[in-house]
Amino acid sequence: MTVTRDDVDAAMARLAGQVRRTPVLAVDASTVADGPSWVTGPLWFKLELTQHTGTFKARGAMNRLRSAAEAGELTDVGVVAASGGNAGLAVAWAAARLGVPAEIYLPTTSSAAKVRRLSTLGAHVVQVGREYAEAYEAATERAAATGAAFCHAYDQPAMVAGAGTLGVELWEQTGGVDTVLVAVGGGGLLAGVAAALAGRARLVGVEPVGAPSLHAALAAGGPTDVAVSGLAADSLGARRLGQIAYDVAVRCAVTSVLVTDDDLVAARRWLWDRYRLVVEHGAAAALAGLLAGAYRPEPGERVAVVLCGANTDPTDLG
Amino acid sequence: MTVTRDDVDAAMARLAGQVRRTPVLAVDASTVADGPSWVTGPLWFKLELTQHTGTFKARGAMNRLRSAAEAGELTDVGVVAASGGNAGLAVAWAAARLGVPAEIYLPTTSSAAKVRRLSTLGAHVVQVGREYAEAYEAATERAAATGAAFCHAYDQPAMVAGAGTLGVELWEQTGGVDTVLVAVGGGGLLAGVAAALAGRARLVGVEPVGAPSLHAALAAGGPTDVAVSGLAADSLGARRLGQIAYDVAVRCAVTSVLVTDDDLVAARRWLWDRYRLVVEHGAAAALAGLLAGAYRPEPGERVAVVLCGANTDPTDLG
Repeated sequence: MTVTRDDVDAAMARLAGQVRRTPVLAVDASTVADGPSWVTGPLWFKLELTQHTGTFKARGAMNRLRSAAEAGELTDVGVVAASGGNAGLAVAWAAARLGVPAEIYLPTTSSAAKVRRLSTLGAHVVQVGREYAEAYEAATERAAATGAAFCHAYDQPAMVAGAGTLGVELWEQTGGVDTVLVAVGGGGLLAGVAAALAGRARLVGVEPVGAPSLHAALAAGGPTDVAVSGLAADSLGARRLGQIAYDVAVRCAVTSVLVTDDDLVAARRWLWDRYRLVVEHGAAAALAGLLAGAYRPEPGERVAVVLCGANTDPTDLG
Repeated sequence: MTVTRDDVDAAMARLAGQVRRTPVLAVDASTVADGPSWVTGPLWFKLELTQHTGTFKARGAMNRLRSAAEAGELTDVGVVAASGGNAGLAVAWAAARLGVPAEIYLPTTSSAAKVRRLSTLGAHVVQVGREYAEAYEAATERAAATGAAFCHAYDQPAMVAGAGTLGVELWEQTGGVDTVLVAVGGGGLLAGVAAALAGRARLVGVEPVGAPSLHAALAAGGPTDVAVSGLAADSLGARRLGQIAYDVAVRCAVTSVLVTDDDLVAARRWLWDRYRLVVEHGAAAALAGLLAGAYRPEPGERVAVVLCGANTDPTDLG
């Protein structure tokens, strides 16, 4: 399984009018002048935090469901997913938009807040097992038994291609970039944007040291399990990179850089102090990669930073 | 004194590369479909909350200081202003950018937080009197005595024309709108955008019932004192509309609608829930005017809502 630019182009057509074309902010010269010495601009922020359900996952979920509908796979039984995080919210939202039921599987250890958010979107929440893996297993069995369309959180071609539409927009909105920095969890966003911009821009995946799925996969020659911890575990804590993401990452010569939790906190605070934008800790990773110097562009290099989500409590920014 | 489109065009040239060209978000059809029945789109949000110092005031302040510099009025004595709010922050920021001293006058009753924020920007804070009027008086006397350039918070041609550059950008970014909704305090933003778009778009000023400076001025046939209270008093609580704003408002047939504090709270919460954008209560006024139905566009009317600032504590959005 892989994803190509053709898949992303097909997703663009499928998602027209279905998801938000999120704005791009051209970072002004004075910010660059005040920044680290290796930030010399031009620089853009893609404000994907304004997307439906608060993250880029809405793109993939809607593309997955509409693809399934086109293929005749979407019936009154609806969809099944296993995720108490951003992917689950996006699937619940997309199902509600299309008027089909969504069953979202979570471990029994999930917080009441997660269950409530999903229920508010109209999803039926099923809690199974003490760990995510058990909920995931139960969800796939349920989909197989009922004929519901199963939605993977990231390692499914339609999810990846949907996420890739962000890259197409970004290219159009900036008039072209050399490098795109994105946060990496399961790698769906990274792979989608890499496929969208293959041969045009290089992708840099940024991940916390506590959730280095891409870093570990590139080192090991394939997706491999990593221990997950830290501030961004909720959004970037996939235990291993998706197979599709690995395939695209190798094909597109994607690189990986790591940041610390302190870097995430500092980048999230910087963005609020300077731009009055709120992102979740995981979404701060891409910016942290630049500010902390984990990635240092060449002079004149055109860089875009994807701010991919804001499902966060902003209380600590007060 | 008045401000015309020529003044705004001159400000555009003066501010190139000095302030941020803030992005515009095209509100998607699904939001419109979920919204009040009178919101039928097309609709845009101007994300001026991402401007330097967190509000549109940076435009006016920088235009005022650069105009003064061009006219030879800006000496080593620097600038003086009276404002503990967004205008004061913007003047302090612009002065620091241009490398001249800023003296900001505040009443002794101002919070330590306001003093600290101004000091952080490098301003010298002077606290005089128990009320804003006394601090204002002292500031004008000081400017007259020292030859410092005095910066009014809103009723000065360069402040108004600078704010108007937002309107020029908005027109270019949207390809044209019929109506622009803006929050009104002293009326600088309203007048600037109205002058920028005179003959092209109509302006609707939205103000809280507790700070109805425009409403009162239009009713009285000129700026008149109003009692100020409510959630947005900090940012929209000018005691009377500026004379320039009144002049432009009449010339451009600007209208005024009122919203309640509850409308402000609801609009601010709506924006966070739906778009993960944070605004201050005053800046929520323009959106509140639309959501609460104080202004109801015609079907097909192209509407832009200016989200003009985010100097707020986001704690209550958690």
